[in-house]
Amino acid sequence: MQLSRFPAIEECIEAFRRLPGVGPKSAQRIVFHLLGKDPEAAGKIAASCEALHEKVGLCGTCSMLVEGEAGGSDCSVCGARDPGVICVVEEPADVFAVERAGGVKGRYHVLMGVISPLDGVEPEDLTVAKLIERVKAGDVKEVILALNPNMAGEGTSLYLAQVLKPLGVRVTQLAHGLPMGSHLEYADEMTLTRSLEGRREM
Amino acid sequence: MQLSRFPAIEECIEAFRRLPGVGPKSAQRIVFHLLGKDPEAAGKIAASCEALHEKVGLCGTCSMLVEGEAGGSDCSVCGARDPGVICVVEEPADVFAVERAGGVKGRYHVLMGVISPLDGVEPEDLTVAKLIERVKAGDVKEVILALNPNMAGEGTSLYLAQVLKPLGVRVTQLAHGLPMGSHLEYADEMTLTRSLEGRREM
Repeated sequence: MQLSRFPAIEECIEAFRRLPGVGPKSAQRIVFHLLGKDPEAAGKIAASCEALHEKVGLCGTCSMLVEGEAGGSDCSVCGARDPGVICVVEEPADVFAVERAGGVKGRYHVLMGVISPLDGVEPEDLTVAKLIERVKAGDVKEVILALNPNMAGEGTSLYLAQVLKPLGVRVTQLAHGLPMGSHLEYADEMTLTRSLEGRREM
Repeated sequence: MQLSRFPAIEECIEAFRRLPGVGPKSAQRIVFHLLGKDPEAAGKIAASCEALHEKVGLCGTCSMLVEGEAGGSDCSVCGARDPGVICVVEEPADVFAVERAGGVKGRYHVLMGVISPLDGVEPEDLTVAKLIERVKAGDVKEVILALNPNMAGEGTSLYLAQVLKPLGVRVTQLAHGLPMGSHLEYADEMTLTRSLEGRREM
């Protein structure tokens, strides 16, 4: 008696295995949990996953997630906050992270990824054109680049700076350096170099 | 803009957070993954979770999972293998583990848990009565107890031995000792004590 004789169980394990952070062993554990100790949970997951794409859309302006509003319409931030500042992030989840940290006094723009020629991701695959449009439309004084501090993020930031600066807008980038609560002794060289380069007058 | 303004997303995160091995951060990561990079995955998970309880039932005899057969009917093992040996395990997943190791020359019996008075689990909450019935019905020569080697598993094994032995059946238990490939130096005391007690003539 092997798992291959249970197609419905195998299919469910396979569906969970594709999720980030879930390996084959944890996927199996999850499915046996759904079969045994928590039979309600399977129904809740099925219903909430189905509702996810029905109820959640993207803001027509900044590509942030919108829920409970007409698809394509502006999100609550685009309609309300200072249009003079745009904070550019990679993913919708990053907007929540910036908001948890107090947010920006301005609006957001979700790129939906980063430029990565090796993976076949070019500026045309992202919301770069929409960002340029927003800046060209006027009112924008500063674009804050808040992309992830890695190769792809840095490359995309450089590209965006080159494209946006000629439009007469101020382009800034989040500070890179030692994270709060860390130890200088254990900091990697790249981070330490960046924190030296970015040192501030006291 | 906080997550609390996105009830469909929050509900989905909550559903995943209840799964074993998934914390609040991983649940959030999974849901943003479903929203962004892999929109098909949400549908696959919803469909497979829904199918899980529709298509999978329990064997009327041994309580092992059955699929594609009429609910309550016997599983493929109960109908085919030697009825003289019954291997008792805690969960259906344990049957797959024993089968991967080569299986037993006999049938299975899934207890659906272990006796644990502190958690309110008594023998009546498990499939103990069905096991006694199977042994009483005759033909059974040996019951192999393959429960997990911890407090609850050991307690349940002792209880089952007390109940089954008077019925004239041989009751055995899986060997406890050093796992293959391990180092004696790092073995815990309990395991080493058990491996000494269970030492074999060479």
